[in-house]
Amino acid sequence: MAGNSIGKLFKLTTFGESHSDFVGGVIDGCPSGLKIDLDFIEKEVQRRKPQQEGYSTQRKEEDKVEFISGIENGISLGTPIAFIIQNKNIKKQDYNHLKDLFRPSHGDFTYYNKYGISSSSGGGRASARETLTRVIGGGIAKLILREYGIEVSGEIHSIGKWEYARNREEIEKELEKIVENGDSLGGIVSCRIKNCPIGLGEPVFDKLSADLAKAIMSIPASKGFEIGDGFASTTKYGSEQLDNWNNDFTTKTNHCGGIQAGISNGMEINIKAGFKPIASLYRKVECIDKEGELYNIENSGRHDRCFIPRAVVVVEAMVALVIADHLLRNFTNKINR
Amino acid sequence: MAGNSIGKLFKLTTFGESHSDFVGGVIDGCPSGLKIDLDFIEKEVQRRKPQQEGYSTQRKEEDKVEFISGIENGISLGTPIAFIIQNKNIKKQDYNHLKDLFRPSHGDFTYYNKYGISSSSGGGRASARETLTRVIGGGIAKLILREYGIEVSGEIHSIGKWEYARNREEIEKELEKIVENGDSLGGIVSCRIKNCPIGLGEPVFDKLSADLAKAIMSIPASKGFEIGDGFASTTKYGSEQLDNWNNDFTTKTNHCGGIQAGISNGMEINIKAGFKPIASLYRKVECIDKEGELYNIENSGRHDRCFIPRAVVVVEAMVALVIADHLLRNFTNKINR
Amino acid sequence: MAGNSIGKLFKLTTFGESHSDFVGGVIDGCPSGLKIDLDFIEKEVQRRKPQQEGYSTQRKEEDKVEFISGIENGISLGTPIAFIIQNKNIKKQDYNHLKDLFRPSHGDFTYYNKYGISSSSGGGRASARETLTRVIGGGIAKLILREYGIEVSGEIHSIGKWEYARNREEIEKELEKIVENGDSLGGIVSCRIKNCPIGLGEPVFDKLSADLAKAIMSIPASKGFEIGDGFASTTKYGSEQLDNWNNDFTTKTNHCGGIQAGISNGMEINIKAGFKPIASLYRKVECIDKEGELYNIENSGRHDRCFIPRAVVVVEAMVALVIADHLLRNFTNKINR
Amino acid sequence: MAGNSIGKLFKLTTFGESHSDFVGGVIDGCPSGLKIDLDFIEKEVQRRKPQQEGYSTQRKEEDKVEFISGIENGISLGTPIAFIIQNKNIKKQDYNHLKDLFRPSHGDFTYYNKYGISSSSGGGRASARETLTRVIGGGIAKLILREYGIEVSGEIHSIGKWEYARNREEIEKELEKIVENGDSLGGIVSCRIKNCPIGLGEPVFDKLSADLAKAIMSIPASKGFEIGDGFASTTKYGSEQLDNWNNDFTTKTNHCGGIQAGISNGMEINIKAGFKPIASLYRKVECIDKEGELYNIENSGRHDRCFIPRAVVVVEAMVALVIADHLLRNFTNKINR
Repeated sequence: MAGNSIGKLFKLTTFGESHSDFVGGVIDGCPSGLKIDLDFIEKEVQRRKPQQEGYSTQRKEEDKVEFISGIENGISLGTPIAFIIQNKNIKKQDYNHLKDLFRPSHGDFTYYNKYGISSSSGGGRASARETLTRVIGGGIAKLILREYGIEVSGEIHSIGKWEYARNREEIEKELEKIVENGDSLGGIVSCRIKNCPIGLGEPVFDKLSADLAKAIMSIPASKGFEIGDGFASTTKYGSEQLDNWNNDFTTKTNHCGGIQAGISNGMEINIKAGFKPIASLYRKVECIDKEGELYNIENSGRHDRCFIPRAVVVVEAMVALVIADHLLRNFTNKINR
Repeated sequence: MAGNSIGKLFKLTTFGESHSDFVGGVIDGCPSGLKIDLDFIEKEVQRRKPQQEGYSTQRKEEDKVEFISGIENGISLGTPIAFIIQNKNIKKQDYNHLKDLFRPSHGDFTYYNKYGISSSSGGGRASARETLTRVIGGGIAKLILREYGIEVSGEIHSIGKWEYARNREEIEKELEKIVENGDSLGGIVSCRIKNCPIGLGEPVFDKLSADLAKAIMSIPASKGFEIGDGFASTTKYGSEQLDNWNNDFTTKTNHCGGIQAGISNGMEINIKAGFKPIASLYRKVECIDKEGELYNIENSGRHDRCFIPRAVVVVEAMVALVIADHLLRNFTNKINR
Repeated sequence: MAGNSIGKLFKLTTFGESHSDFVGGVIDGCPSGLKIDLDFIEKEVQRRKPQQEGYSTQRKEEDKVEFISGIENGISLGTPIAFIIQNKNIKKQDYNHLKDLFRPSHGDFTYYNKYGISSSSGGGRASARETLTRVIGGGIAKLILREYGIEVSGEIHSIGKWEYARNREEIEKELEKIVENGDSLGGIVSCRIKNCPIGLGEPVFDKLSADLAKAIMSIPASKGFEIGDGFASTTKYGSEQLDNWNNDFTTKTNHCGGIQAGISNGMEINIKAGFKPIASLYRKVECIDKEGELYNIENSGRHDRCFIPRAVVVVEAMVALVIADHLLRNFTNKINR
Repeated sequence: MAGNSIGKLFKLTTFGESHSDFVGGVIDGCPSGLKIDLDFIEKEVQRRKPQQEGYSTQRKEEDKVEFISGIENGISLGTPIAFIIQNKNIKKQDYNHLKDLFRPSHGDFTYYNKYGISSSSGGGRASARETLTRVIGGGIAKLILREYGIEVSGEIHSIGKWEYARNREEIEKELEKIVENGDSLGGIVSCRIKNCPIGLGEPVFDKLSADLAKAIMSIPASKGFEIGDGFASTTKYGSEQLDNWNNDFTTKTNHCGGIQAGISNGMEINIKAGFKPIASLYRKVECIDKEGELYNIENSGRHDRCFIPRAVVVVEAMVALVIADHLLRNFTNKINR
């Protein structure tokens, strides 16, 4: 069943396999009159690119975004905004040796069982490539938020077991080690929303926190979500978790992470997204064929060893999509608002 | 905007404030021909009750569930199943002294700002009472799952900083301590889904893991969600997180928690839900009025000190709602299935 | 699959068979702060009642509406508004002789085949009783519209082949005749929406005209829908159908019926709804059992001979639900509105 | 708000203005394993083309459909099927003289008021061009229906006041006359669905008849919808409208048009769609500017004089979209189906 749309009023629908001709998306429900800052979108797309040496102009052009509807003279028309990005350098043969094999911890097996089909990319839509369309949709969402002074900013919280802010050296060493070993690393991305107005979130099921959790947990490789003090709050007494009032209705602490009873309270919203290391290793792994026979296969694709730096803008994008949607949803909260 | 429904094919809509005449719900999309085991629903409702001494029949009758449509001769008709539960012993005056005050870390303030109204219950729908309707809807979902051999079982993982399985004594002491101090404790509930068929989940946004996260994070006081190894997986190497194959397509480990690329893989699904301690303490807390004046107020309501034991069945209910919905959604995955 | 909700932002979900204990509904998405005029709702409910002699107080109480959530002190809270109406005088035995028979032109057969169940009411939700919940939901919608000065007013356009405004006498005779013959009559209800603001309707699929058509065609026994000149416009030249401008942006004619390109243009919206005569006759009709055997059966239920007078308020209700929903939807059309 | 999607399980989202670079769409929810017969889709697209002399290959290439995702080796993957069609020969200057004018009976005025923007095409999405994407989406829907033996076939019922089957000569004369006069003509398209299984349709709001009405009334220029005997049934006695049984559960007549209580009954479904003549005339018409000044303007665009022949495949497409969606929806009707 259809599962490729997110949002109720500001709705992003995405499409494209890593081996189809294009990936892309349609944003339905973008208000008219929004200045579409293409440079900003382009910068967001660049932030998602692999941050490695030898990064060249040629490579850059691979992710050329074309907006093909809904915008005229740089302004949104109120009609659906569609965009496409060509998949260049598709090397279906790269995966030919995998065509009848299921890799461990990949989508190959589940996609095959669900749909009864082996696509050339193995896992159908299960690919980091797909997150590019999230970044573009999220970019448009950020342009809406900017109009209301709302800011979404993510950062790397940790890579492997090392906190990013304090342990850059150790992380560098770890990254060298995994390149050497053909291994991979995950980590945690944190994200803050500043200047979020009070009142966003629709109890009881479409709480702002619930929709943020869904958006984050829809990102490939995500395994955990926290808001405010998260799991740490489970070990404290209630008296330690109270966010006491200042006279201006801000709170002295922000254990709750900016959301009370599913509705934003005007404080900074902060969340964490935990990602496992990716499963595509540069070493022999044990694959299985449709008859249950096991094979030792060397990976020859092109994958990140640690995608956490690139995940920051993806996390921001998903957060922005949710906040933009709830911002619009909240326009109907009161009669004669 | 409407936010009181969950599910696409198996859809639960709930209603009722803690101070309205009734709470209740409507299940739309329940297949016809389902045997509605009312004893089972009643047992689920009992599991959500406060597990304290002096628990009496009179109290029991307070949560009498009436199914008022969609069922005939104990069988679902395929039409909407509506149910209501009267709110007895509503003591609006209990809260009268709070009517113009916002409690710290409660929904009073956010509801008031969102809707411009102070309801007698303060936080509108923000109340543990609301979870009763989740348990009933989830009970019907479990009856569907039972037909397909799928089992959902939750348990207490930890209370405060103590693991439940190993530290009962310490937990008992902690609970005594918070009663003494008028304080509260949170904890973690874990939940496993056994015999889930391969193929549930609709990439890329309606992944099974994403919809589980949303469902869990919509429960009052939830602050964190994990699937499989969760945040712990962020500290491991990819080679440590691979779930290697057995010849029968099960895996030797289950780091992923039964979901690959957003789709169930046939292994046991396991999740964790982290809850902060509730904010209603039995001691003086600092409230604020609409002018920003602070007041020290003693709480006189009736609240749990630690709702984790009661939360188990609520977590299970939310999980069951998601799995039942995705089970139905997956009926349309292939042509000529 | 779930099909008992209508509306995206102002959403009505209804439940109840004609033989269940209650019929009722839940309105999710009603803005907070709306004065709920219960007398008005009661009057709407009365307008739907059979307008026959011997109409008594006792009968009146049968449709007592209870609002059980979402309202406090006569004001909407922004939370779901649920309502229930008890089904009194259910006489399941009235239909016992029909239990294993399918009546001609009734929902018995289709419901049985779809759901595999014979409910005691035969056609499950297929009953005039169900329209009561539409009238209540529509009544709340009208209260919203009233705040914006929008008025919905329906009237009988024709009964049988007679235009209502000009042929009352003939219609009286016809009605006497069908009572005599145990027959029934249909007709056409027209409805106008005054003071509808410009801009309601969401192209291309959720056009205001499209959503009105769906709402009307969801009413039992509806067989046709027209907007503006309707089918008559198909026989005219384009030059005859142009609605030429006045200087104030109103138009000299209103062939289009107040909607251009799916969006309201500020002129009066007018539609027509055509209803077939109901199929429950007071004479012998040929029923069929599950083995395909035919039986001549005398009807003993209680049905209208001509429900057109009662359909007026039902048509208005459906129209009001659509307009209220689109009014709210249009709050998000422009950036910085 | 988002209004460019139709369908719940088989969902088509379309995009593109008549003056954007592309029009296109995304089909989410197409089951996997469907053979995508591109020749069939191409033929459907051809059926929508202007059927005039001088129709050339060059023109033909203008509507070249590119499927850019969701299909591999001619088989649907179960992932979103996206398609795009370039808008060639866009002549924005054609409309330059209209840029600040609102034409009578066009979407210019309503779009401008709703969105606050004048796009170069005047009415944003309000253009016959948009229906191309409906035909492609409907084409994929027909391929699904074909797998289940369901057939959708439309035909011209009337043009102007002439029945098509009997009055070809008169219609030819009429068409010559409107070319001469720069006028236009509408008409009625009928459509039949053969071999529709019993049980499609989801009461009470998502009745099959209601969803068909919405789909038809979302087509540009549609002004009326009928099912079965339609408005004619309003003038008959109930005894004349009964569809009496044959022993095999078919009915001797089909006044209801194949749907009882909103659910298909296995008989042929038949509907009618009434279209007004298009408002773009080849003669001087009175336009209005934003200050309310009137101007006599000669039209210089390229428009059909009578689009009824082309509308047949558009009507079929909308019907097919609805039936495919309800076919999938009905897969979840019973437990252990």
